[in-house]
Amino acid sequence: MLTIKRLDINDAYTLIEGARAKANEIGVPMCIAITDEGGNLIAFERMDGGKVTSSIIAMDKSYTASGAKKATHDYGAVSQPGAPAYGINSAIGGRLMVVGGGLPVIVDGDVVGGIGISSGTPVQDQEVAQAGIDHFLGSL
Amino acid sequence: MLTIKRLDINDAYTLIEGARAKANEIGVPMCIAITDEGGNLIAFERMDGGKVTSSIIAMDKSYTASGAKKATHDYGAVSQPGAPAYGINSAIGGRLMVVGGGLPVIVDGDVVGGIGISSGTPVQDQEVAQAGIDHFLGSL
Amino acid sequence: MLTIKRLDINDAYTLIEGARAKANEIGVPMCIAITDEGGNLIAFERMDGGKVTSSIIAMDKSYTASGAKKATHDYGAVSQPGAPAYGINSAIGGRLMVVGGGLPVIVDGDVVGGIGISSGTPVQDQEVAQAGIDHFLGSL
Amino acid sequence: MLTIKRLDINDAYTLIEGARAKANEIGVPMCIAITDEGGNLIAFERMDGGKVTSSIIAMDKSYTASGAKKATHDYGAVSQPGAPAYGINSAIGGRLMVVGGGLPVIVDGDVVGGIGISSGTPVQDQEVAQAGIDHFLGSL
Repeated sequence: MLTIKRLDINDAYTLIEGARAKANEIGVPMCIAITDEGGNLIAFERMDGGKVTSSIIAMDKSYTASGAKKATHDYGAVSQPGAPAYGINSAIGGRLMVVGGGLPVIVDGDVVGGIGISSGTPVQDQEVAQAGIDHFLGSL
Repeated sequence: MLTIKRLDINDAYTLIEGARAKANEIGVPMCIAITDEGGNLIAFERMDGGKVTSSIIAMDKSYTASGAKKATHDYGAVSQPGAPAYGINSAIGGRLMVVGGGLPVIVDGDVVGGIGISSGTPVQDQEVAQAGIDHFLGSL
Repeated sequence: MLTIKRLDINDAYTLIEGARAKANEIGVPMCIAITDEGGNLIAFERMDGGKVTSSIIAMDKSYTASGAKKATHDYGAVSQPGAPAYGINSAIGGRLMVVGGGLPVIVDGDVVGGIGISSGTPVQDQEVAQAGIDHFLGSL
Repeated sequence: MLTIKRLDINDAYTLIEGARAKANEIGVPMCIAITDEGGNLIAFERMDGGKVTSSIIAMDKSYTASGAKKATHDYGAVSQPGAPAYGINSAIGGRLMVVGGGLPVIVDGDVVGGIGISSGTPVQDQEVAQAGIDHFLGSL
């Protein structure tokens, strides 16, 4: 039998709180999604002005990061033409996201969930995702 | 040009707050989804213990209620065998929900969004959705 | 080789015009979809106030009616529990509509396209679809 | 609560009218889709001779442009191999279009909807979309 560590709903809101603060700081309203370690959605917020198209993208970035235990921008690097994971972006009906902004949430070496951000540039999205994680880890 | 009224993110959290309180009162952890009047997701919470399968169901109940301006249990009544809307439950790739727990959010006669609840019985889901709306309307 | 008769875009707008007039007469803003005899969309109008969820439903009713050369309410009758086509409503990813409001457009015995209506009751939808066809046939 | 400005059905037909005129001028029959600011379809026309495959492409270009508040050709530039949004084209089940021909419709700084064109080259599609917008803005 396995014993799994997993984000609870309060952890999810702490992650959102940190991401929202950074999004406000850089002036880009974001879609923010938090998944558990199984890739299932725990919480989601579309800030006023966040993009409609980014709702699913944020959820799928978080799904990818937590389910694959890997940052989505790392998939971006290995899925370029000629690279080993070329074409992986259309897997799972397009849910496998290779664009930056999805990060696994890691505690004591275990992936306990993920965070996915969308509405800005991939660099902004990734920065906001990291701010969510930093705020969460600082609260432990 | 049309001018539309729509829930903002603070309204969405007020709706969630009211639904969560009722869910706690009846002891059933719920998935709670809030959409805008166009059916697009604004906010989502899966309470600790909420069902994984209920995540999409809650989102689709809210999508149905806001997009069709109609409670999902009303679709349940008119889609029974022999009734005029029989078979509507599989429309839109199955997103058209006819099970109770999705309600439109109406302010001054306008549908401004929707709330969808899932994890309990349809009656419990509907009760929790209504509690979210009551709490929101009471806050205006 | 086959020679096919098919609605052109002007025919499609004539069908929409007739449906819109009836929708206004009964006071129910509708989604109106016109497909060709191959089930492919030619024209679509969501009247102001038409339901967001009804967009795809109207298109799929028209797709069903033209592609299957059959009114959607006829599928409703034969897909009841115990009837021969029971369960057909979830076919084609849920695109096979068995709710009234989709009618084939027939000229000189040939199906040349379809019309699908959604946002009212199935009876209203069917009435508006028929009004579109009557207006179109009267214009020939 | 938010207050939103949105294209109405007459605005949608004005956009189509401008796009159709340009399509006729360059001799390329087009699929023309108009969405509201939430990405939901308002109106669609497949001109006689427009491509069947272009129906969904036009709708998804308009969905992308209005939902993401961004021209689809701008996504094309940033999603090239090695660029930051590489791989975004398969997001949202492939609905996120990065090919030119989708433009947001902006009035007084607000995105109020979108227009999506398909059947020509991406450059032709974009030109026809712009003509629709120019005609609409000129009518205000």
